[in-house]
Amino acid sequence: MSVGGSLIVPDAIDTTFLSHFKAFITEETARGRRFIIIAGGGKTARRYQDAAAAVHNTTSDDLDWLGLHATRLNGHLLRTIFRDLAHPVMITNPDDVLDVHEEAPLIIAAGYRPGASTDLRAIQIADRVKAHKVINLSNTDYVYTDNPKTNPAAEKIEDISWADFRKLIPETWDPGLSSPFDPIAAREAERLKIEVAAINGTRLDALADYLNGEPFLGTRIHI
Amino acid sequence: MSVGGSLIVPDAIDTTFLSHFKAFITEETARGRRFIIIAGGGKTARRYQDAAAAVHNTTSDDLDWLGLHATRLNGHLLRTIFRDLAHPVMITNPDDVLDVHEEAPLIIAAGYRPGASTDLRAIQIADRVKAHKVINLSNTDYVYTDNPKTNPAAEKIEDISWADFRKLIPETWDPGLSSPFDPIAAREAERLKIEVAAINGTRLDALADYLNGEPFLGTRIHI
Amino acid sequence: MSVGGSLIVPDAIDTTFLSHFKAFITEETARGRRFIIIAGGGKTARRYQDAAAAVHNTTSDDLDWLGLHATRLNGHLLRTIFRDLAHPVMITNPDDVLDVHEEAPLIIAAGYRPGASTDLRAIQIADRVKAHKVINLSNTDYVYTDNPKTNPAAEKIEDISWADFRKLIPETWDPGLSSPFDPIAAREAERLKIEVAAINGTRLDALADYLNGEPFLGTRIHI
Amino acid sequence: MSVGGSLIVPDAIDTTFLSHFKAFITEETARGRRFIIIAGGGKTARRYQDAAAAVHNTTSDDLDWLGLHATRLNGHLLRTIFRDLAHPVMITNPDDVLDVHEEAPLIIAAGYRPGASTDLRAIQIADRVKAHKVINLSNTDYVYTDNPKTNPAAEKIEDISWADFRKLIPETWDPGLSSPFDPIAAREAERLKIEVAAINGTRLDALADYLNGEPFLGTRIHI
Repeated sequence: MSVGGSLIVPDAIDTTFLSHFKAFITEETARGRRFIIIAGGGKTARRYQDAAAAVHNTTSDDLDWLGLHATRLNGHLLRTIFRDLAHPVMITNPDDVLDVHEEAPLIIAAGYRPGASTDLRAIQIADRVKAHKVINLSNTDYVYTDNPKTNPAAEKIEDISWADFRKLIPETWDPGLSSPFDPIAAREAERLKIEVAAINGTRLDALADYLNGEPFLGTRIHI
Repeated sequence: MSVGGSLIVPDAIDTTFLSHFKAFITEETARGRRFIIIAGGGKTARRYQDAAAAVHNTTSDDLDWLGLHATRLNGHLLRTIFRDLAHPVMITNPDDVLDVHEEAPLIIAAGYRPGASTDLRAIQIADRVKAHKVINLSNTDYVYTDNPKTNPAAEKIEDISWADFRKLIPETWDPGLSSPFDPIAAREAERLKIEVAAINGTRLDALADYLNGEPFLGTRIHI
Repeated sequence: MSVGGSLIVPDAIDTTFLSHFKAFITEETARGRRFIIIAGGGKTARRYQDAAAAVHNTTSDDLDWLGLHATRLNGHLLRTIFRDLAHPVMITNPDDVLDVHEEAPLIIAAGYRPGASTDLRAIQIADRVKAHKVINLSNTDYVYTDNPKTNPAAEKIEDISWADFRKLIPETWDPGLSSPFDPIAAREAERLKIEVAAINGTRLDALADYLNGEPFLGTRIHI
Repeated sequence: MSVGGSLIVPDAIDTTFLSHFKAFITEETARGRRFIIIAGGGKTARRYQDAAAAVHNTTSDDLDWLGLHATRLNGHLLRTIFRDLAHPVMITNPDDVLDVHEEAPLIIAAGYRPGASTDLRAIQIADRVKAHKVINLSNTDYVYTDNPKTNPAAEKIEDISWADFRKLIPETWDPGLSSPFDPIAAREAERLKIEVAAINGTRLDALADYLNGEPFLGTRIHI
């Protein structure tokens, strides 16, 4: 499960969201569910990237690394609030998930290295543990056919194939890209036949519906 | 040289300080001086530590790790604005400074592991490279005999021995400690005969005076 | 280029092979060629695996790790004899090849983590650097249709497709497997359209022929 | 406890010693004792160092790294034969011992980085875990006043102070040094008030005597 930085640090750190999310995950793991959660960078990433750009011209690699360290700070915040549940070491390299005991109810992950988003890391981690479903929590209810803030004709999507979805997004990724899902991650998800559910993280009932295999408010992207 | 987080992120990220500091260090390295700069955590550390504490009771180790990741984010910000000068990899383990080519004009470092402050890491790095002087940049002009914000009788110190200084501070360290220099780092600095100059980082002329071996506005702590 | 451990440590360490190989690679890099060489484990791996099995029942993971450490020892031996040419740090994680300056004439690699052979790491490294050809040096002249030591009807192969080759080998890999190329690596090579040339490392003229795009003594496996 | 490579790989790997040692440590941990064992490099180190020197002129750093990788191979062999007892990850950086749960009955360690012997790492690990005693197992019964193989007047030592011992050995260390204990490690042991017992690892009764606080066949070095 990928938790967008926009949920953790929409502007200041959102301790209300974190408290609700903690209660939700604690309850679900008590029922025997197991989760791997990878944190996004949110406003912390954006603030450091903007500050760097204000002092010196920046490269993709620089922006990527600042974003990565922000995901690690956010990831460690999740690791801290889930101290009673989570595997004690935060994962950055997706391969390292293989070293965690498979009974661990919760593993926290963060960004690994430049050149890819946490979306791709989520897909890679799913591949390592043979998971078929990835949940992408953000602060919007649906994936839309275009950016709804700039295009009033943008329509919400409830169910879409990877092939159709990939026509809606760019083909390459860079650290400043605004896309509902990283294009490289989308290509890998399609190849690996992984389903992604895009859900608004503040609607924990929608998340519960999806976990229970029921109709849910959000977007399902699949092969 | 240790750059306190209070200079980098006093509240928001201080791009004005960073621009001046960049110009200063660039000029000094052009003259052949070489620096190792370790970043503190600043308000970023404090904000994440406070958020964690608001959601879940925290341990020293948790707070330490959140602070460490904040120093790494700040360190990477320094690494980014000094991209033309700095060794490309940010150091966290003080031992790793030995793997950097000794001609590197600038090395950026950050926090390593829980249980010690970046003050101690600065002393350990100095020991590894056989440096005899460490500069501790913060947002105050001097070290005082007590906290001047709470004790109006607190007096500024211009020159003090490690033995006398250590009587003014606690004996142990924890991540929330407010002390002008980490007690464990002070003990190591004394053992290794390292001099520490505490200087206000916004007074770059004071820093220049110290580098040139002239009288400077700040506090000298030595054996 | 993958250098089988059977060449480095056929029984004792073969310093004659290493001297010739060093001269060859030095000459080729002087002409502007660039190589990434990954070391196998050879007899050192086998001896430690056998010793472990003599004292305690072992798991695949144990045998794998002993083999990995043997490849690192062999890799560091290569790194040492190529000190004037090679990137100073030996790579284990294939991703890390992306951090090496692309002008480096020679990079030495070794085993990364359990669950895969150095064959797979060679393919993964080739994928990271967008290389289309991997050379697999061993102590036999060709890949055969079966093990020629046990099956006198085994025939040498000069040119074969991945599809046909994969019918000749098992479908899964384990640390004790005797196969001319790791099945998982074969599947990945096919997917990534990478050509593998299997050449006898003691026939450096055959290696030169292949590098020069001429007919060579050995086996070509391709899509 | 430091297990000299001369015990693990006197020439070939000594599976008889390893079997006896395994039985001994298993019994002692069953009684509640806890051990940290660091492996030396033995003949494996020497063979790779000699092979490197036969092909190319070598530096201290090269020899050191080959020795380090040999200690890791030997360490992993110990880790493998103690799979039921040992912490699953072999330690190389002495600091990392602090991340292992303190109830772990057995931790295996190996060489960390160039510039120091496993003797020094043993002392550093002891310092991290606040241990006061380090056992140095080798293939000789005592520390002698000089090398008994070359000086027939060399006398065995049963009890000696660090100050007197340090007069008998050189002041600096290099990877080829033949000294009963690394001089840098000796200086640190003295500073940290750590006692070292040098015992023949093939005399497990002597080791048992020492563990039980009884007179033992071997050399005690202390402050």
